[in-house]
Amino acid sequence: MYAQDTICAIATAPGGAIGIIRVSGPKAFNITDRIFHPIGPTTAPLSARDAYTLAYGRILNEKEETVDEVLVSLFKAPHSYTGEDSVEISCHGSSYILQQVVQLLIRQGCRAAGPGEFTQRAFLNGKMDLSQAEAVADLIASSSAATHRMAMNQMRGGFSRELSALRDKLLHLTSLMELELDFSDHEELEFADRNELSALTEEIEQVIHRLTQSFSVGNALKNGIPVAIVGETNAGKSTLLNTLLNEDKAIVSDIHGTTRDVIEDTVNLQGITFRFIDTAGIRDTHDTIESIGIARSFQKMEQANIILWVVDGTQAQTQMEALSSRIFPLCLDKRLIILFNKADQMPDTDWVHLLPTPMALPQKTEILPISAKEKTGISRLQSILVEAAALPEINSGDIVVTNLRHYEALSRALDDIRRVQDGLHTHLPNDLVSQDLRECLFHLAEITGGEITTDEVLGNIFKNFCIGK
Amino acid sequence: MYAQDTICAIATAPGGAIGIIRVSGPKAFNITDRIFHPIGPTTAPLSARDAYTLAYGRILNEKEETVDEVLVSLFKAPHSYTGEDSVEISCHGSSYILQQVVQLLIRQGCRAAGPGEFTQRAFLNGKMDLSQAEAVADLIASSSAATHRMAMNQMRGGFSRELSALRDKLLHLTSLMELELDFSDHEELEFADRNELSALTEEIEQVIHRLTQSFSVGNALKNGIPVAIVGETNAGKSTLLNTLLNEDKAIVSDIHGTTRDVIEDTVNLQGITFRFIDTAGIRDTHDTIESIGIARSFQKMEQANIILWVVDGTQAQTQMEALSSRIFPLCLDKRLIILFNKADQMPDTDWVHLLPTPMALPQKTEILPISAKEKTGISRLQSILVEAAALPEINSGDIVVTNLRHYEALSRALDDIRRVQDGLHTHLPNDLVSQDLRECLFHLAEITGGEITTDEVLGNIFKNFCIGK
Repeated sequence: MYAQDTICAIATAPGGAIGIIRVSGPKAFNITDRIFHPIGPTTAPLSARDAYTLAYGRILNEKEETVDEVLVSLFKAPHSYTGEDSVEISCHGSSYILQQVVQLLIRQGCRAAGPGEFTQRAFLNGKMDLSQAEAVADLIASSSAATHRMAMNQMRGGFSRELSALRDKLLHLTSLMELELDFSDHEELEFADRNELSALTEEIEQVIHRLTQSFSVGNALKNGIPVAIVGETNAGKSTLLNTLLNEDKAIVSDIHGTTRDVIEDTVNLQGITFRFIDTAGIRDTHDTIESIGIARSFQKMEQANIILWVVDGTQAQTQMEALSSRIFPLCLDKRLIILFNKADQMPDTDWVHLLPTPMALPQKTEILPISAKEKTGISRLQSILVEAAALPEINSGDIVVTNLRHYEALSRALDDIRRVQDGLHTHLPNDLVSQDLRECLFHLAEITGGEITTDEVLGNIFKNFCIGK
Repeated sequence: MYAQDTICAIATAPGGAIGIIRVSGPKAFNITDRIFHPIGPTTAPLSARDAYTLAYGRILNEKEETVDEVLVSLFKAPHSYTGEDSVEISCHGSSYILQQVVQLLIRQGCRAAGPGEFTQRAFLNGKMDLSQAEAVADLIASSSAATHRMAMNQMRGGFSRELSALRDKLLHLTSLMELELDFSDHEELEFADRNELSALTEEIEQVIHRLTQSFSVGNALKNGIPVAIVGETNAGKSTLLNTLLNEDKAIVSDIHGTTRDVIEDTVNLQGITFRFIDTAGIRDTHDTIESIGIARSFQKMEQANIILWVVDGTQAQTQMEALSSRIFPLCLDKRLIILFNKADQMPDTDWVHLLPTPMALPQKTEILPISAKEKTGISRLQSILVEAAALPEINSGDIVVTNLRHYEALSRALDDIRRVQDGLHTHLPNDLVSQDLRECLFHLAEITGGEITTDEVLGNIFKNFCIGK
């Protein structure tokens, strides 16, 4: 076991009825016993109790004052989350009490845990691989059925098993290649059939390719499908955004422990998260169309998969004419939804008539008259958004890459395996091809942290976890 | 046992590493068994396991998908918080997961718990009396050593024991009185010495009086000592308030589950909470001194124990002259602290010289030159505030009334016992005096909920708890 000190941290958010403090390390029982005084039939110290039992008692400070009446859960190495001796102290959910207990533990010899340190220990003690450890943070941050399924599958080792199968194939390929290499002096001997090698390599390339491709879906699901709301300032963009946000505000929550530094407005519709990209309103288009602010708005559109163009219905003709030539070229590979807002004020308008000829429109354009203020047309807009998201359903067993670090490692592995393919195709010497194969193995191993994992890499991964995890 | 359905609720605040769901009621094991699938050597259902043990396993939904890997703690009636069969499900701290698990439990037959319903059941099942139940909410809301000690003492039954002793004395007095009453036909018999009765009554009166008196301290400690910051608009009131607040922002936290509807700015200094009362700035005093806004500011001063009068040091003479005659009369029974702000701009000023003669000052006046902007003099101000608070130290065993409901019941009991004293003094017939004694007993019993407690009273008490407690 990875030898270390005993750490403690509050593992629950402030404000609930119950607060939990985690303690893990070789002295977890010993230190907790110094402050915990059992009540009830069994007065045995924690260190003399069975694993997987609960002890009720009081936490006393150095002045013998009761800090709280608590329940302590016992876990013994290696059958704990971290793989170490651990306790969880369940207190009344007062920040004051939780801080008092943590300070007591620290005075008795614990160290305050860093972000994700419990999960890092679980990894270092072999309880999970790196991709599973990373899935724990994703699981905690999961806010929809899809992100939950992806994180749960990854945490339960689905991705690791896929990578392990890939690794077996690569090792088989390597051994075939190296066997050939050993006998390369005997040119008449060619153990591995070149066609068989090519077929195996192609199979591997396809798996890695599929995994890297899944990242665009995984990322959209995890961080939300980027939607830009554009239009002139008075068109009703903010009202629309507020209407969309208020519909489902309860499901949108702060995300702790993930890599997203900036939290943008997100809305969850039928289990799909949409991330709304703020673009500056386009004010008085005729005068300032070339200004830097507007240029930035158009730049931000490029990050989006879906564009909501809000047109003031009462000035539809003018606004369409002013912006069409600017917006349409940016929407060629995106979904464009033109919203004629304030439509309630223009009951008899033939909106389709306002559009240019179908030829001039981007291919995937929808139009919809709405009233952001009166909230009419909003549920239709939500349906269009869900349909436009066009994400495949994620099932329990599906392997979807959601982590940028994994995506980068897979991209490198994909380059490696493609160099192997080229090498085989151009009859490169086997030792050069083998070198690329080893690179490919190395890059895949980075994902699960199987081979070498530097402190720097670990530091980067776990710094984004919350404390207490 | 109080017969009822099985309830469930999330007991932790959203956002932590761990989230806890509580289930309590006759079917707690039965319902949880339907969604919980143990992993590990023991596959026994929860209902077949020992109390005070932990079970590791998966929560599966109706589609057999893993919702989470969890730890379940088992408690068997009557040895649980509520006195009923209970489980606590420890999940990954994702709001999505916690909501999924709660919804599963509800589909399997649980009911979503109301605010404080677990504690209400603990009371109804005789695990604690009402004053102890109320202390649980106070304990969770405690944010300083003093409020923590008061709540802990009350939860552990300190107040209840004091009331119980009082009740014994009252019952003794009643029995003496009623014995006398039974024999009242025989006028020659006077079992209870009237002097003894008076002495006992006075003893009881003193205890109840002391308890009601402790409420002013208990309330100040619990809700914060009210401090009004007054002064002209440009004097630097907001800067001062921000400086005071920023010093210790981390300790100030939202308070859940208490009866305080409005959360004002509070600052914790050396374990004492100060509550700052916002008063409107007094603008251009010569013109608007009589306006309604200013009148309100002066009204609010009346709620405060401590007045901070912020004077712009660069206009000290004018401001002192304009407001002294208004502020001083309101500070006769309060602590007045005159702060000469922007003192850094007036290095050679003799501030004392600016004051009227000591005779004209309220008795407890302090003066202090500060700079709210440069943060000079602030730590001295904090010391003066702590000293001005002049609250007695609360020790572990001290009985301090902190709850308005208890204060009101005690005030009524005090009226009752004083009527008893009058009755004894004026030789009122014993049966009339006895009636007052019974009233006194009834009002004291209301505090612990011992006798009759209506659903309405319970509803009022527990509605202010958080869900999951």
